Amino acid sequence: MFKAVVTINFKKSILDPQGNAVYKALKSLGYESVRDVRIGKHIEVNLDVETKEKAEAELKEMCDKLLANPVIEDYYIEVSEVEA
Amino acid sequence: MFKAVVTINFKKSILDPQGNAVYKALKSLGYESVRDVRIGKHIEVNLDVETKEKAEAELKEMCDKLLANPVIEDYYIEVSEVEA
Repeated sequence: MFKAVVTINFKKSILDPQGNAVYKALKSLGYESVRDVRIGKHIEVNLDVETKEKAEAELKEMCDKLLANPVIEDYYIEVSEVEA
Repeated sequence: MFKAVVTINFKKSILDPQGNAVYKALKSLGYESVRDVRIGKHIEVNLDVETKEKAEAELKEMCDKLLANPVIEDYYIEVSEVEA
């Protein structure tokens, strides 16, 4: 069994309205030291495959097909083996 | 300048409807090996403070006040120093 963590963020060039709203909210709560906020997705997927390579390949396909929008988002995948 | 990554997930005991929907979508796309999907938030915050300890303390406060809902969510914070 493999556990994958997929982190999906807007590309640097894409505006992040949710991050911007949180930035303003933090400022208005008095956190003057905040410089920038970006909000993305953190997806944990458990996969029952034989090898880490297979897990990574499947995850990449899932990201391109469903999880991320490659036009405006970047993703990265971290796979680790876990107890079944 | 410090860069913090805050990861926010539902507690294990809380249902994750978004994760469940993605799980079903992956199954219906033919990914039979998928066992579980949980979806959380990945927040990047840049902070202009003097020390790492101060950054961590401020982040913790921000999470409790605004970023996370401690009743149903767990969060963890990773702070690293970056170039200003």
